[in-house]
Amino acid sequence: MNQPIETITSPSNPLIKSLKSLERKKGRSETGLFLAEGARLVEQGLEQGWQAETLVIASTMADRPHLAALARRAAAAGARVVLAPERLMSKITHKDNAQSVIASFRQQHRPLDALTSADNGIWIALYEVRDPGNLGTILRTADCAGASGVILLETCCDPYSFETVRASMGSIFDMKFANASFEAFNAWRKAQGLSLTAASVNGTVRHDKAPYGARSVIIMGNEQAGLPDAIEGQCDTLCLIPMRGGADSLNLAQATAIMTYEAWRQRDFT
Amino acid sequence: MNQPIETITSPSNPLIKSLKSLERKKGRSETGLFLAEGARLVEQGLEQGWQAETLVIASTMADRPHLAALARRAAAAGARVVLAPERLMSKITHKDNAQSVIASFRQQHRPLDALTSADNGIWIALYEVRDPGNLGTILRTADCAGASGVILLETCCDPYSFETVRASMGSIFDMKFANASFEAFNAWRKAQGLSLTAASVNGTVRHDKAPYGARSVIIMGNEQAGLPDAIEGQCDTLCLIPMRGGADSLNLAQATAIMTYEAWRQRDFT
Repeated sequence: MNQPIETITSPSNPLIKSLKSLERKKGRSETGLFLAEGARLVEQGLEQGWQAETLVIASTMADRPHLAALARRAAAAGARVVLAPERLMSKITHKDNAQSVIASFRQQHRPLDALTSADNGIWIALYEVRDPGNLGTILRTADCAGASGVILLETCCDPYSFETVRASMGSIFDMKFANASFEAFNAWRKAQGLSLTAASVNGTVRHDKAPYGARSVIIMGNEQAGLPDAIEGQCDTLCLIPMRGGADSLNLAQATAIMTYEAWRQRDFT
Repeated sequence: MNQPIETITSPSNPLIKSLKSLERKKGRSETGLFLAEGARLVEQGLEQGWQAETLVIASTMADRPHLAALARRAAAAGARVVLAPERLMSKITHKDNAQSVIASFRQQHRPLDALTSADNGIWIALYEVRDPGNLGTILRTADCAGASGVILLETCCDPYSFETVRASMGSIFDMKFANASFEAFNAWRKAQGLSLTAASVNGTVRHDKAPYGARSVIIMGNEQAGLPDAIEGQCDTLCLIPMRGGADSLNLAQATAIMTYEAWRQRDFT
């Protein structure tokens, strides 16, 4: 390290407790922060201009050139940079994911209109998605497909949980998302001239025959209950992904991937 | 309950230890058994003719008609049926998945030729897949798409782990799968006249333009490393799923879903 950097060694240091609190929704809500674990993920956050509050690096690793560079970069962006022994870091990180770099970042909460800036024609709306892994995986898939944004309708799981951030593989920093009520969302998408296509067990049009149109929102329901009738009634098309085996239904993230790639394929590939 | 049923109450009962050991690969390998948690999953196993060794039901729930019926059915199929207090059951089940029904089932290890019996034209081969959640999700998707079977090539994660069984949502009992070396698999698929199509970062054909043909195997590589060159060299087509966003790659299960549904769409839907 080229600059003097704070070192902490006591497990009772308040910073450890404060970072540890971000594991829970309560801690994240109270502080407006969330954790990113691993050098690559932290780099992605800084690259995308997210504000790192604190960067903790394992003391024994701090001399590695790429970590020293990361520390300088985070410090230059205003983060508090701290070295800590691995035994303290393991108090913050998840056991199955021991990392030598952890950072807390400030959450971003965007209005719906922030999604309009990157218009690639496809949006994804999730109604009351509850599984953090599904949400992270869908953010990653939306990012791969270059979706314009993901809209989290009503009460979804927290996009800033450890599980979602991890499953997103960095797309948490890259893919624009916004929270909204269905009502606000529906008014917004109509004003934008976006069609609304749901995947539903009540669907009557096969998913590859749906008229997604040039600009559309794909809406997906809750893992257990799907979409309420009132919301299905607002959709332009209800489509059905075919099944022929023994399973009842696809996993939500799988169904979202199939719908999203089909909408993109139809519009741009054919 | 209509019949006298064994009740255990001591945490040192050897049955608890023996069921608990199935959480680990070692315990599963030594006994040839695996755990299924939850009444619905256990019912699916029995329905599909899998051999339940032991069925444990929470004592306080044993009088519920559907659980009493499940107990009779399992006993008739030769299972040892046991009642246990919930505090003992929680020693076996996963904390995030407390269940009032747990069963151990005998594993099935099928030869490749067992997959030939249900020929719907699409097979999925996974080369060294390592994430149990991915494997379970892919089994579920394969089941939804009515795939003929899933082939686990070389050293994949254990299909009988708790995470895989849970993510499969019952498809562990329904979807036929077999382990094989790549060499044995390749000889088998050639003898069957099956084309071999990989999703690969080296792909040159877009995934929706690949000539899957009437009967084909979709092969997917390891989460980190993809497919080795030698295996890609054996494929008839290397195809590429397009990306245009910030993410490097799709999650393995997501990519498998997109490929599988596209192969099926091309063959049967168009």
